Order: sequence, then structure tokens, then C-alpha cells
Amino acid sequence: MGGIDLPPRGDFATLTDEDVAFFREVLEGSRAGDDKTSFSSSSSKVRVDAGSLATANEDWMKKYRGRSKVLLLPSTTGEVSRVLARCNARGLAVVPQGGNTGLVGGGVPVHDEVVVNLRNMRSVVSVDRSAGVVVTEAGVVLEDLESAANARGLTIPLDLGAKGKCQIGGNVSTNAGGLRLVRYGSLRGTVLGLEVVLADGRVLDLLRTLRKDNTGYDLKQLFIGAEGTLGVITKIALVAPPRPIATNVAFAAAPSFDAAVAAMRLAKQSLGGALSAFEFLDRASLELVLRELTGTKDPLPHAKSPFYVVVEVAETEAGGGHAKNERKNQPELRLVLGKKTKQKRAALAKARRRLAAFANDAKRRGFVTAFVVGANAKHASALWNLRERISLALKRAGATYKYDLSLPTETMYDVVEALRARVLRAKRKEESDEKKTDSSAFFDYDTVSVMGYGHLGDGNLHLNVSSPGGYHAALLSLVEPFVYEWTAAAKGSVSAEHGVGAMKRDQLEYSKPSEAIEIMRGVKAMLDPKGILNPYKVLPARNTTPDHQPRARL
Amino acid sequence: MGGIDLPPRGDFATLTDEDVAFFREVLEGSRAGDDKTSFSSSSSKVRVDAGSLATANEDWMKKYRGRSKVLLLPSTTGEVSRVLARCNARGLAVVPQGGNTGLVGGGVPVHDEVVVNLRNMRSVVSVDRSAGVVVTEAGVVLEDLESAANARGLTIPLDLGAKGKCQIGGNVSTNAGGLRLVRYGSLRGTVLGLEVVLADGRVLDLLRTLRKDNTGYDLKQLFIGAEGTLGVITKIALVAPPRPIATNVAFAAAPSFDAAVAAMRLAKQSLGGALSAFEFLDRASLELVLRELTGTKDPLPHAKSPFYVVVEVAETEAGGGHAKNERKNQPELRLVLGKKTKQKRAALAKARRRLAAFANDAKRRGFVTAFVVGANAKHASALWNLRERISLALKRAGATYKYDLSLPTETMYDVVEALRARVLRAKRKEESDEKKTDSSAFFDYDTVSVMGYGHLGDGNLHLNVSSPGGYHAALLSLVEPFVYEWTAAAKGSVSAEHGVGAMKRDQLEYSKPSEAIEIMRGVKAMLDPKGILNPYKVLPARNTTPDHQPRARL
Repeated sequence: MGGIDLPPRGDFATLTDEDVAFFREVLEGSRAGDDKTSFSSSSSKVRVDAGSLATANEDWMKKYRGRSKVLLLPSTTGEVSRVLARCNARGLAVVPQGGNTGLVGGGVPVHDEVVVNLRNMRSVVSVDRSAGVVVTEAGVVLEDLESAANARGLTIPLDLGAKGKCQIGGNVSTNAGGLRLVRYGSLRGTVLGLEVVLADGRVLDLLRTLRKDNTGYDLKQLFIGAEGTLGVITKIALVAPPRPIATNVAFAAAPSFDAAVAAMRLAKQSLGGALSAFEFLDRASLELVLRELTGTKDPLPHAKSPFYVVVEVAETEAGGGHAKNERKNQPELRLVLGKKTKQKRAALAKARRRLAAFANDAKRRGFVTAFVVGANAKHASALWNLRERISLALKRAGATYKYDLSLPTETMYDVVEALRARVLRAKRKEESDEKKTDSSAFFDYDTVSVMGYGHLGDGNLHLNVSSPGGYHAALLSLVEPFVYEWTAAAKGSVSAEHGVGAMKRDQLEYSKPSEAIEIMRGVKAMLDPKGILNPYKVLPARNTTPDHQPRARL
Repeated sequence: MGGIDLPPRGDFATLTDEDVAFFREVLEGSRAGDDKTSFSSSSSKVRVDAGSLATANEDWMKKYRGRSKVLLLPSTTGEVSRVLARCNARGLAVVPQGGNTGLVGGGVPVHDEVVVNLRNMRSVVSVDRSAGVVVTEAGVVLEDLESAANARGLTIPLDLGAKGKCQIGGNVSTNAGGLRLVRYGSLRGTVLGLEVVLADGRVLDLLRTLRKDNTGYDLKQLFIGAEGTLGVITKIALVAPPRPIATNVAFAAAPSFDAAVAAMRLAKQSLGGALSAFEFLDRASLELVLRELTGTKDPLPHAKSPFYVVVEVAETEAGGGHAKNERKNQPELRLVLGKKTKQKRAALAKARRRLAAFANDAKRRGFVTAFVVGANAKHASALWNLRERISLALKRAGATYKYDLSLPTETMYDVVEALRARVLRAKRKEESDEKKTDSSAFFDYDTVSVMGYGHLGDGNLHLNVSSPGGYHAALLSLVEPFVYEWTAAAKGSVSAEHGVGAMKRDQLEYSKPSEAIEIMRGVKAMLDPKGILNPYKVLPARNTTPDHQPRARL
């Protein structure tokens, strides 16, 4: 578990043949005595074969691995309900699973939890173009949902690197942030309704498509970001804004972090609602991408810079007098192109103009020293990839300690520099120690690099410590709890968007006061009294030392 | 209570002299035996005088009236904490109160609850221009908070008619919607952090200013819209977007409700992020305003129409090539005006151009038949008032049954027409009955008018039944439960933005399934086990008939 201590198994029941038979009856309609050869076929909804279980037990980073004995693939809310009712009655622990693209081990078993993967609930229920609302089952892959929305002129207000695999139910369960938050806001504002199966199998129908509803406590908010510990999300109603006609990207070099922040403020002010992403990366991140991923190249080779920003603009309308003029200057276009193509061309030109105007303004003010604007879709995509694929490049490079912090934007990068200095000091110390002794605790810091990138527009820093030499206790002790303590001192969050999962449950107290954690425990106890839903996740383990007796004040 | 049955008093303690003495000591530092003449002075924070209590006991519509014996005016979180700890220990019921501008009786006592008004917590803690975040105490009046934000180039993402009196703490407690929701989204997205005093006096510090934080359940969401039943909000951190440089308004006549909806869709598409409000009113609403409020006039006297829309655009930047040209054509402006004034002029021109372009487009498409765009700030404000002051006009006209519904936008107005038809049928029936008998149940339907207006951009209908002849059981029985049943059938909300309060607690089941109401009760029991906070509000009274035994499943 990559340096994470495995918590002891809870007092849950163990899966029996009767349980499996029950699941088969509920999900496959088969009874004991039926032909068992189909059990591990690709259409089976109750998987006990080694191959299926290997995939279900391990996260994509291969950092967390459980030993579940069964993977269930229900295809209706009713099936999820009957499965949970059984598990609750029997005291079987359950881990709800989506695309398994999480970064904190929230979606894989820790011990032998029953895995309930939602991927068979993959219908888009409705796309209402006029109202701008999409209703979907939870297992739909984000990219497929985007396609369904696109077909009706809409877009999904969420985009992230894992879109080809992650499921919308997992996105909502983890309150995924991603790349478009600066434009469309968080899922807490764009999720209009949810259908949730509670631990005991009851179906909580909060599936509404209303923009406004002030009838009592907004319970759906409890399930957004609960990472499956309070219920299993089965359906979602989501605001879907008009699909932008055209997007484009500028990639610019910033001489300092302060300059990058100033450029971000300028972009928010001058690009307004058209700004759809404002990301930053440091030189170390860019170099990693250039080194690890073939086909990438530095778009500003003559302006090597400590920081870079990626600015995306999305146009929902062709509008603007300039486009008309452009058409006037190219009268042949009017004959050749359809109305849609013409609109798109005009919107593309508008996006390009806007980005260039912003970047020139930023350059004049000294916020950036050089920039390039996407010449076409392919070029824009290549610019985007330099930021979007850092995560992939890190994986290629090897072991990585990953941190996802919310910090006050202006001083966000300080922690990267402070950590770099710590690593450097450790390296120097070791070099001087080395002359004296060849300790087994020796660690080669030369290959370690500390890098920072992230969503500048949201104050979200992805701090990564890449260690191609592997995970090492000495390195970890340099990084933790340093990073967490720094974040707590800055009143930041130790998980801006990745969630808590198995990885950060014991760091929760760095971001939340004890009163809040106690109330969270109360909510959990109320909705899942037996604690069967995703145990060992989100809530900190109870500390049993006398100083930390569980308080039963709530 | 305007037709609302008074629920029986709960099993709470009764205020004693010792309680009052305790409150004086906590809030005023005085002890028994101190000079008592100051008790009712204007600086007193413990009010027991008839004048103070009369104001505190009654809502602004004079529809709800309690009989509290004490009004407390704490000025710090610590004071609120000590007051609540006392009330909780003693079993004294409490009603948290803000500006007392609510529409559902949520902020006034029902019986003899201790009133805790936050108006002495009126400091704006910080306005961070660069981060776009305002931190404030809960008792700050919305308009004052807007001024504080304006002074630093920011705006508050919430605006409503009561802004001169309502407090931001009350706004958050009721999840107020208002006029800018279409642009900035709901408070659930813009509130970044809260400080809340729990029923037992513990202070829950969730006051963070981070845009993103995925460390466990988002507990602050429980308190947003809980109407003071789960805790007393004492401080708030709020996103404050850049202040628009210029706003302007178009007022247009729509030939049908469908046309008004089509105009709204067009505005969302073509005005994009610049659209800051899209409101509608029907002819009956306009006529009421013209009749009741002096100084108002029909801006489109030659285009009498069944529907009108009010469209607001807000510009955050001067931008645009046209502005430059305008300056070029008027070179003297460059000499006379400061940079800010020039920017503002350019932005005003831009807003005017945008609105005119939209309105002309809508007219060409037949969505509107005539329109007028604000010629200057005063004119724009006069146009806005025709929509914003309907509520005031209704109050002037006399008794009003008010409904605040969320419905599918396209069919939203159907309920207004259906209700009008019901009233008409009742009137005709009475006319024919009249010939036979002069019943005491006779009600003069002639003066009754049913009108609809609201936030078209959010699918929020304000349905009002104006009855200058007074409240009457026969009229009420025509309206209720008809309106609620209609709303439930359309999967709408019986309270889009006004909240539940004392008025709609027994209508909650029209919008929420029983499972949700049970979970709400669980949350309430967990956070306020003695039920002292705002009793008789939000949650439905327990029905004690055998069919409706309280279920203790949670």
C-alpha cells in the first residue's frame, strides 16, 4: 500500500457460498444448480474469477490492493438496493467502485469488501437541450456523457484527464474538480439531483432537475464527495451548459510565480465568462513531460522560464463585428461553407483574438515574457497536453509522492520551494555523512525532483515528489508530515480535489477541526449504522489511546 | 398567523429572572443589583421592553407574531456560544433572527422562544480583492456588505429586494436566491466557509476561504438553508466576483409565455456570461405595480402584452473595438474624462449595444414584439423597479397568498392559468348560487387577481393571489392544496427560494420523499438533540395518528 499502514480488518462477516448464490439470483436470475460455467463469462454480473478480481482489487496506480472475493455488476437501482440490503443484513462490507481512476485508494477494497462496480448502469437517461439538464445513470463514462451532451449542443461542466475511464458516479462521489471548475464552478453547484441507495438498501430519491429548491436540508450535498461511505449514487441530474462552439489555448512563460498569479487575475478580469481554464506548471514539470513523453516539445524554447501558464478560452457564440468583417474580406467563404462551419470559424477567430489580446496585455505588463496561441485544434491540443499529461509523465518516471493542496493562491508555491530546500539540505547532509559511513539508510537524492503544477484559478496546487529511485522511508519522512503541517498552518486543505480515500484519512485533522470530524462520524453512524459502506476510508481511524477517546457528544 | 394553525408549544423551559440575569452578565457584563435603568436603552444587548419585543416578535409582513419575552443582541461568537450553551442546558427554545425580512415566518418566534438577533455582529472582517473573497460577520446588512465589496472593486454574488434590511447571515441560513443567481449561481457554490455555533454552544469552525476542499463531508452545506434549525451562523466567507463596471436593462413585451421562454434561451446563448438577470412578469403584475406605486409608468404603452421580460447585462470590462472608435469620434472625451470614467462610459455603451443587439434579434425571431433599453442609470433603474417592486405593490394592495415554486420552465406558467380558471369558475358558480341564497360563505371574487412573475432564468415562479378583500377560507381552499399538488405532480419544489419556515413545514412532503424527511429529522436530532433551535420550523410536525407513527429507522 505504498507506505500506508493497513488498518486492521473490521468486525464484518465473511462472504459465503450462500451470499454468492443470493447475488447470482438477484443479478442474474439464476438459482443454485444452474449451469455454473457462465459465472465468469464476460456477461456475468457476479464475478469470482481471478482475472476480474485482480482488476477490481487494484487501483490504476497499482498503489492499493485489496483481496475481495466477489465483484458485483448490478445494472439497475433495484439490483443495487437488493445487494446492499443483503450486505447490510449480513454485515458484509462493501466498496462502491466506478472507473477506478481515483488517486487516494477510495475505490478499491482494503481487505475483502464486496466490490459493487456501477459500470453496467451506463444509460444516459435524458438530455434536455432546452433546460440544459442531463440525467444519467452513475456508471456512464465521463467522455461518453460528454458525447451525449455534445450531440444536443450541450457540454458537461466537468473535464479531467481520466475522462476516458472515470464514471460520472465516481466523479460526483469524489466531488471531482478538474479543468473547468474556474468556468462552471464545482459539482456542488451543478449537480441538481441524485438517486442514492442507502446502506440498508432503501432508495433515496433526490433526483430533481430544479435549479432552485429550498425545501429543507440539501441532503444530496452529503453524498457529493462522501466517496461512497454514506450511500451508493445510482443516478445523477446535472446542469449541462451550452457547448462552446470553439476553444483555444495560449501557453505563456511567466518570469516568477507572482507574475503567473498576476496573469491569472488579469485573465479573470479581462476574459470574464469566456475563460474556461487557467493552469500553471513549473519548469521541472515541463522538463519531466518533455523527457518522459515522446512527441512533446517545448513550445517556447527560446524563453526558458521558471513558470508557465496555460490559458483556455471557450466561445459559446460566434458574435462580434470582426467575424463579419473577416467574412466580408473572404466572400468565397459564404458560398462554400455551411452556416455552422461559418459560425465555428468566426468563433475560432474570436477565441484566437481574445487570447492574443490577453497575452499581449500580460506581456506589456510584464506578467509573461513570451507566449504562443494555438494555431489550430491540433496545436492547441498539443499545448494543453503539456499540462494535462504531467500526471502520466510522473507515472512513467516511477515512484511519486502526490499531494493535492488548496492554499492561498499568492503564496501557494512557497511550499514547493520549501520542500525543495529540505531535499537539498538532506542531500548535502548525506554527501558529508557519506564520507564517514555507508549507512543502509542511504538514499540517492540526486534523482528526486519536487515539482508543482495545478489549477491556479482555483488555488489548487498539485505538489509532486518524483523519485525514480523508488519509495523510501527517509524521503517520505522529509515530505510528511511537513507538507501537511505547512498546509494546516496556512489554513489550507490537504485534499483540494482528490478526496480522502484510504490515503489521507489520518490527515483529515490537518484540515478539519475535531468538532467537524465528530459530526461527520455522527452522519456516518446515522446513515450507515453498521459501517458497511467503504470502511477504512475518509473518516480517521478511532485513536484508542486515552487522550483520544471517542467522544459520544453527538 | 394568516391561516396557519399554531402548533402546540413544545416541552421547553420558561424564561426566568435568573436566565435574564445570566444573559445580562454574559452580554453586558452587569450583575444582579446593577442599575436596571439601562436595560431597555438603545445600547442594551438584553431587551425586555415592549417596544423591542414587539418588533422582534413580528415579521415584516405582519403575518406571524410570537410572544417572546426577551431579545438578545450578542456582538461576538463567544457571546452567542455562551447564550446557546445556557439555553441548551436549561431547555429554553431559541429563534435565531436576522433582518426579519423572511416570507415564511422562519425568523420570528411562534411561542415564547428566546430571540437571538445577530445585528450587533456587523463587522466586515476582510475584503480580499486579489483572491475575490469577503469574510464577514453574520449580522452585516446585505447592502452594507455590497458597499464594502464595491469599495475594493468586488461585488456580492447575491442581490434581492430586501437588501437594505436583510442580513447576510439570514441570507445564508435561508439559502436566498434573488436576482443574480442566473449569473453567479447559488450560495451553495459561493459560500466558501462558515462559522457556526451549535445548539450546545460549541463553535464549529468551518471558516475557510478555499475554492476547493475535499476533506470529508461538506458540513457547511447542512447549515446553508437550514433556517437556523441546526446552528447559528456567526461568520461567513463568500466568493466576491469583480464588480461590474456597468449594468443596463432591457424591458420587452413577449406575445406569449413560450415566446418569453424562447427569449430567455436566446439571451443565455447570446449574452453568455454577461447576462446577470432574466426576469418575467405577466400583465396582471405590471398593472398592479402601475396601479399601486406612484411614479411608475408603462414603458411600452403601445404594445400591451400578456408577458414582459426584464433582461440585465453586467459588464466587467470596458473591452471591445467599438468603444475605441467611439472615443475616436469624440476626441474631447479623452481630455476631459479620467481613465475610470472613460472605461465606465465604454462599458455602458457596450452593455447598451449588447442589449439592443439581443432585443433586436429576439424581435426578428418573434420572441418579443417591442422593447426599450435603459437610456441611463435612472431609466434602467425605473425599468428594473417594475419587476423588483411587485412584492411591495402586492403588500400595498392588501392580503396576498404567496407561492414560490420551482417548476419545469417551459410549462411553469400553466399553474397560474389553471388557478385563474379555478377562481373564475368559483366566481361564476357563486353568481348563479347568489340568486338562490345569501350564504355567509359568500366571497367576492371580483377583486381577486392571480398573477405570476419571477426568475425565468432559474425556473422559479412567484405565484401570487392578491385579495384586496382580505384572507378568506373559501379562497384559500381554491388555492391550497391545489398549488402544492400541481407542483408535486410536476416534480417541482414548493419553495424555490423562500424556504420553509413556519409556513410550509407541512407542505414539505409535496417536494421531499419520506426517506429524505426522516434523514432530515436524524440530522436535526444529532445536531440539536433537545430541539431548542428554531422549533416549529422547517421539519413537519410529527403526525401522531397510527398511520404516521414516527419511524426510528435512522
